[in-house]
Amino acid sequence: MLDFYFDFFSPYGYIASTRIEALAARHGRGVRWHAFHMRSVMKDRLGLTQALTALPLKGDYIRHDIRRLARWLDVPYAPGDTAAFVNVAADRAFWLIHDQDAEAAKRFAAEVFRRHHALGDSPRDAQALMDIAVATRADLVDLPQALDGQACKDRLRDATDAAMAAGVWGAPTFIADGEIFWGVDRMPMLEHWLQHKEW
Amino acid sequence: MLDFYFDFFSPYGYIASTRIEALAARHGRGVRWHAFHMRSVMKDRLGLTQALTALPLKGDYIRHDIRRLARWLDVPYAPGDTAAFVNVAADRAFWLIHDQDAEAAKRFAAEVFRRHHALGDSPRDAQALMDIAVATRADLVDLPQALDGQACKDRLRDATDAAMAAGVWGAPTFIADGEIFWGVDRMPMLEHWLQHKEW
Repeated sequence: MLDFYFDFFSPYGYIASTRIEALAARHGRGVRWHAFHMRSVMKDRLGLTQALTALPLKGDYIRHDIRRLARWLDVPYAPGDTAAFVNVAADRAFWLIHDQDAEAAKRFAAEVFRRHHALGDSPRDAQALMDIAVATRADLVDLPQALDGQACKDRLRDATDAAMAAGVWGAPTFIADGEIFWGVDRMPMLEHWLQHKEW
Repeated sequence: MLDFYFDFFSPYGYIASTRIEALAARHGRGVRWHAFHMRSVMKDRLGLTQALTALPLKGDYIRHDIRRLARWLDVPYAPGDTAAFVNVAADRAFWLIHDQDAEAAKRFAAEVFRRHHALGDSPRDAQALMDIAVATRADLVDLPQALDGQACKDRLRDATDAAMAAGVWGAPTFIADGEIFWGVDRMPMLEHWLQHKEW
């Protein structure tokens, strides 16, 4: 197995989501998917309060880089309105589904990524997330009701703490046999690890 | 031609320095080398006052990552004492030499990188930089004397401003035909660009 840590807001995580299962399968591995709340890691652990895309220079770079990277890797990319996207609710919905059926949660996550980053059809509320759950046969939970509960907020907080405890500080991150890889551009290095188990 | 922006403190820049000329040559390109003062870009433009390696989690990751990346790419890595390394003086010395002979400045830069990051023999003062200049036939300037002048401080400041004006916010950065690539792990993407000129 290997672990894939993501937050739905990240376009690099979206690109990774379209490729990680095939990469792992080439080496006989399965993938455990983990949504976490990147913003709280940035604020609480890294002391960064601004989104990277809000930084001068770096923000412009990232916006251009995502587009060329998606074209290079032949991954559809046409993002929706980030401000309208209920990113944190999607992170929480992932865990509500996951705790019933981890494979269903993966299908749900892949589709949430695709709707926001590739179709420009960002889920805007709990009902839209429920519609995606139905479409991906991941309708194991009444999302509009469950997302209101404290338990599901705690679940994402616990998952985020667990990610940090595993050494995660950015998204996407991959962990295989204790080796941590940050960033979609490190997938070739992850693949080298899976093949050779040494550097 | 393509442009390579670096600051001597960065181990990722060191790794890039061992590979960028061969990469460019494979595509019939030369390389212009540019030292810049990364710390002032981080502080003035990105609002980051801590070194990345001082961040929790991320710092541990980077220390491990550099070692495995160097092993993976078969680049010698055994760094010296960062606190003792006169990194900014080396940046300034680069430009003093560069303005006499850009090729000599490259030889000097490659050797400064190697001494600090691969041999653990960090240049600790202007005389040590002068010794490297002599060893690399880049002794075009009396470094111990010239490094005291205001002109050479201004030269590095101007070079750093020029780097930012070109869109540089991290080290190492490569620019080819206006396409900006941040990070040694983007060298394969840079190579794709040089080969295909499209995404």
